[in-house]
This record gives sequence, C-alpha cells and structure tokens, in this order.
Amino acid sequence: MARQPTLEFWYEFASTYSHLAAHRIEAAAEAAGVSVRWRPFLVGPLFASQGWTTSPFNLFPAKGRNMWRDLERQAASYGLPPITKPDPFPQNSLNAVRVALFGQDQEWLVPFSKAVFSASFSQGRSISEPSAVVAILDSLGLDGTQVLKAAASDANKTKLRVAVEEARSRGIYGAPTFLTDDGELFWGNDRLEQALAWASGDRPRA
Amino acid sequence: MARQPTLEFWYEFASTYSHLAAHRIEAAAEAAGVSVRWRPFLVGPLFASQGWTTSPFNLFPAKGRNMWRDLERQAASYGLPPITKPDPFPQNSLNAVRVALFGQDQEWLVPFSKAVFSASFSQGRSISEPSAVVAILDSLGLDGTQVLKAAASDANKTKLRVAVEEARSRGIYGAPTFLTDDGELFWGNDRLEQALAWASGDRPRA
Repeated sequence: MARQPTLEFWYEFASTYSHLAAHRIEAAAEAAGVSVRWRPFLVGPLFASQGWTTSPFNLFPAKGRNMWRDLERQAASYGLPPITKPDPFPQNSLNAVRVALFGQDQEWLVPFSKAVFSASFSQGRSISEPSAVVAILDSLGLDGTQVLKAAASDANKTKLRVAVEEARSRGIYGAPTFLTDDGELFWGNDRLEQALAWASGDRPRA
Repeated sequence: MARQPTLEFWYEFASTYSHLAAHRIEAAAEAAGVSVRWRPFLVGPLFASQGWTTSPFNLFPAKGRNMWRDLERQAASYGLPPITKPDPFPQNSLNAVRVALFGQDQEWLVPFSKAVFSASFSQGRSISEPSAVVAILDSLGLDGTQVLKAAASDANKTKLRVAVEEARSRGIYGAPTFLTDDGELFWGNDRLEQALAWASGDRPRA
C-alpha cells in the first residue's frame, strides 16, 4: 500500500483564516486521503521583517473591515459558530504557540489548537494570558500549569525560533499556509481544497 | 418578470486576479442569472493612500513569488492560457482605463477589457503605451486613434477621478471587487461565486 501523502498546515493562533482552516481541515483531508501535519508558528516576526508592527487588517482599515465581514460569511457557509472579534486584535499568541510546539507530537495538539481558535474566535475569550492557556489545557484533562511551565523552557523557545525561520526559508509569508511533500505552497484558507488535491496527485496541467 | 439582479465588477487592468475574473465572469454570471456591470478603475490611488508606491506583490517579495505561482495554477484550473508576466509589472494602466471609462456604455467595453487583459497576461504584450491601446482598439474594428483621443478629454479624466473616489467611498481597497445591489462587498477572484450567489438571493444564514 502506498504511503499516504502529507500536507503541512502552518497556522497562527492570532490569524482569523487559520481559525476557519483549523476547523475544517480534518474532514477535508480525510475525504482527500491526505494526512495533515499541524505546524504551529508565529507570523509576527515575518510581518515585522516587512515593516508591519501589527496585523495588516489593522494597518489597512478598509481591508480590515471587509475581512471581518468576509469571515462572518465564511464561518456561516461552513456551518461554524458566529465569529466573535478578539479584543484586542490581534491577540498575543506567544503562550499558546509555545504550548502547541511543546505538544507537537502529542495527541492533544489538534484538540488544543482547535480549542484555542474557538476560544478566541467563537467564544470571545482572551487567549493571551498564561491563565487563559492554562484553562484551555485544563479543560482537555491536562495539567495546564505544568504544561505551560514546560513550554517556557529554553529548548522550547528555541524550537519556536527554528519554526519561524523554517517558515521564512520555505517561502511562507502569512497564515494559514499549506505545504505539500514536494514543496508546493498554497496560501490561505481558500486554497485548502487545491492544496489537498495537489498533495493527493490531482494537479492541473499547465 | 422580476428584474435580473446586477453585480458590479470593479477591475484594474494591471491586476493579475482581475485578469482571471474578467475571463470567467460572463459564463458564471449567466449561469447564476445575474447581469454584470463592468466598472473599470485604478487601484494605484487607493494603494498610494496607504503608503504603497507600487504593487504589494513587488513590495512583499515572498507574497509576490507565490502570487505568480498561484496565478499559473489558477489559470490552468480555469482552462485559461498560460500566464505571461508583464515587464515591467505592474503595467501603467492609465491609457487603457481611460478608454474603458470612455466606453462604459458601449458594446465594445467587455471585448476591449478582455483583450487588454489577454494582451498583458497571456500574450506578453505591453498595454502601457498609447500605441498598444490603439492597436487593441483597432483589432476590435474601432478607430483606435480617435477613441484614445476622445478618452483623453477633460470630461473623461474627471470621470476616472470620480470612479476612483466612488470605489474608495464604497469600501473598495483592491481589485477585483464585486459589489451587489445591496452594497455587499466581495474582494478577489476567489469570491466571484459567492458574490453571484449573494446577488441572486442565495445567502448563508448567520
């Protein structure tokens, strides 16, 4: 039996369209016969390199206004709960991404990641403070305080820096981004279906 | 019989994704029972207001690299000819947009607009110089020299300024943009289907 193709899903907890992708990638990937590797990272350092000090949706107000409207429409079309806008936006995702990287090979990575997105974008809860992340971990039956402590280790901080540099070196400039085994890059929740098709060998002939 | 709903299609001749939308909107709109109002404009003045002196695809190289790759994939998936990258990019679209605005109510607006996009993005031809625009008009059986001269009138220049300010005041920040009769804004070629569905009354329940 052939090895199942893999799609890397690079996501950022402060990213609105990562929220949409996180909640639909499992079903879509299963239907396509593709396994997903969840790759948490931070987009802030990539944005900073191009001179952005906050989200482009804050820097460019007309774009930001339409993004929130579009996000509402998209969430409704996917049958996801109505969107709650994080305050402030973007949320500081450092604690959450450290935990996700610490849990990279753990079974709780996916439920934790989806719970963080839901807290932020469906339940109107903060995800920035350590206590917010601990509460999410606790709700999954983990020892949140212990996990957060382990996630703050120097080794794990290094892992985060390496992940961001890997993202940069592979051409990533935003989130969500999908990367196939052969290095094809698809940017944005809108490209999930095409990325899965590419991963499973169904490619348009140029 | 009920009046057919209308979708406004705001497009910019230098815009890569406007090229894709221009070549598929007629068939998609006919299938949806929606009539299309073609609205040529310039995005440059909107970009300038947010501090951009050129295309964001030039300002942000990683984003630009993936855009060209994505454009190739998208063109292939729609059965459009392979993409040729304009040199320089973006092309100066001032002459072409003046002609399009002059022809706003003419039957040749749509064939002219599609011919400009094809020249730029499928045939690797310049669209910037007056002679390039004249050649496209001539190829449609028009008197290109006369049309270009009429399009350079003060009244037509004013029409262009008014169109750009209308775009800005209605929340447009890029191209292509689709606007429905009730003011719903959809940005990007990826949203064409949703915009048509919205225009024809098929809306997700929030």
